Amino acid sequence: MYQINEIRQLVEEKINSEILNLKRKPRNLYEPVEYILSIGGKRIRPALVLMSYNLFSENIEKALLPAIAYEVLHNFTLLHDDIMDNSNLRRNKPTVHTKWNNNTAILSGDAMAFWAYDFLKDCPDNSYRNIFNLFTNTALQICEGQQFDMDFENQNSVTENDYLEMIRLKTAVLLAACLKTGVLLTETNENEANKLYDFGINIGIAFQLQDDFLDTYGDTEVFGKKTGNDIIANKKTYLLIKALQLATNRNAEKLHFWINTLQFNAEEKVADVTGIYNELNIKEITKQKMHEYYLKAIHILDNISVEKEKKELLYNFAHQLVDRTF
Amino acid sequence: MYQINEIRQLVEEKINSEILNLKRKPRNLYEPVEYILSIGGKRIRPALVLMSYNLFSENIEKALLPAIAYEVLHNFTLLHDDIMDNSNLRRNKPTVHTKWNNNTAILSGDAMAFWAYDFLKDCPDNSYRNIFNLFTNTALQICEGQQFDMDFENQNSVTENDYLEMIRLKTAVLLAACLKTGVLLTETNENEANKLYDFGINIGIAFQLQDDFLDTYGDTEVFGKKTGNDIIANKKTYLLIKALQLATNRNAEKLHFWINTLQFNAEEKVADVTGIYNELNIKEITKQKMHEYYLKAIHILDNISVEKEKKELLYNFAHQLVDRTF
Repeated sequence: MYQINEIRQLVEEKINSEILNLKRKPRNLYEPVEYILSIGGKRIRPALVLMSYNLFSENIEKALLPAIAYEVLHNFTLLHDDIMDNSNLRRNKPTVHTKWNNNTAILSGDAMAFWAYDFLKDCPDNSYRNIFNLFTNTALQICEGQQFDMDFENQNSVTENDYLEMIRLKTAVLLAACLKTGVLLTETNENEANKLYDFGINIGIAFQLQDDFLDTYGDTEVFGKKTGNDIIANKKTYLLIKALQLATNRNAEKLHFWINTLQFNAEEKVADVTGIYNELNIKEITKQKMHEYYLKAIHILDNISVEKEKKELLYNFAHQLVDRTF
Repeated sequence: MYQINEIRQLVEEKINSEILNLKRKPRNLYEPVEYILSIGGKRIRPALVLMSYNLFSENIEKALLPAIAYEVLHNFTLLHDDIMDNSNLRRNKPTVHTKWNNNTAILSGDAMAFWAYDFLKDCPDNSYRNIFNLFTNTALQICEGQQFDMDFENQNSVTENDYLEMIRLKTAVLLAACLKTGVLLTETNENEANKLYDFGINIGIAFQLQDDFLDTYGDTEVFGKKTGNDIIANKKTYLLIKALQLATNRNAEKLHFWINTLQFNAEEKVADVTGIYNELNIKEITKQKMHEYYLKAIHILDNISVEKEKKELLYNFAHQLVDRTF
């Protein structure tokens, strides 16, 4: 049984030896790849591959390359999403398209998408086809999720179900695929792999709901960034969608006023919209929804047929995720 | 034995049934994919997969999905390259980033990269791993080639060897991979597959040299677009690189003058630079170089162990490629 710190260290070492230390050429293509992979990040996705692998098999070194594949895929999405969302900062550093330019972020991102596949090449014969198909479908779903997210920006009304489907695609399927891949690599029966996938979907949706929650209700000092950004940008979060669904009369009018007003004082908008959220119990409703997904995830984890102590890391992961304040 | 028209028709039907007719959602993601795949193109890459498959096996339907994978990969590169190169027209129609916007071209392109992999999923067990690795390495090399091409724009001197390596990566490896994949799918011995790959590399480099040639020396009416665009843009083509290498005294001065002058009369620049090319014999030198690669390709094709009549389509392809005037 590995501890989380050991897992993290193995991931960092592998990223160093397989990517950062190679200094591949052309430098203008690979420097941005090395940059985004070296400015931190919690390495959640490769850690999930290794944790689920470790449920059924001891020698997690064998799962390290596929774990890196998912980290590279994730960071590929960051490069392109940051262009599309016009984000200048990532992990408190300039984004690739800001530090270099859009063309660099496009092409280095493309290279990462393909390089990610390369890290799957040594998967065992029995799981090779399954893992490749899962990886491809997952990547395609992430693109679809990002498109739905961008579509929502121009849509007046987004239903709760549409929103949950969007975050399933944009966020949850990747965590789920990591967990499933870990099991597939051990060549355990596919039934357990699918359970881990479902665990990942539920915990992934909870994760995104907590993200939405923290952007409005996070403790600024702990959260590490100012709250209220989603409100300022009219981002269609679970909070806003729920508020639009529940608001009546004066609250509904005020919400629509803030959404449609282009020139405003940011602090005033954040305070006023948060006030409406509070009146409508949005804080509790969101926490409750998140808890629902968390409990579903825990229930699935309970039913995975390995000794409880082996599952400890995944229980901790799930718990910290909903309990986190940043 | 299939005829080229039958091959083309099979490819079109498969693109229709597997992509265009599906009308996948979200529409904003997949409409641009359908658009780029429906505005024509010569379908050279899938045709090459099928032609090389047909050297060793009759039932080419089995190679259709992987053939489509390469067409989708190729069109993915077009979406992103057109953003990077700021090109507004492709096949005489607006490019995706012009008709929609950059974000659409980025994300729909990304979806194409992953969708391409999906078309490989039914490859037979014996060749699955080989084909996936080849596909990934090829895609990565194309990114590297595009980066070298962009790097050359800001480089004062590019050697002939650097240039040939760039077009190998940017253009030739994809044709070569198509040809090799066709053979791998028949599960014939890998030696023949590698010969076809080498044929593809040589014919691919010849193809790009002919492209460079036609941009200056093409018959405008037959070529279908105005000649001289590369000269106007100071594009580091084989012609310019060779001219910079050979020019002395007054010709060298004049070339550097035109490269460094930002404001100019386009017709005058094209006429003057073409004049220098003519004096330096660049027309013949380029034709000669192209012919060298063509002959290497033909020599490799001669040595592939199947009856000559089965190779007719590939001989024709090679011949038409160097003989083409557009």
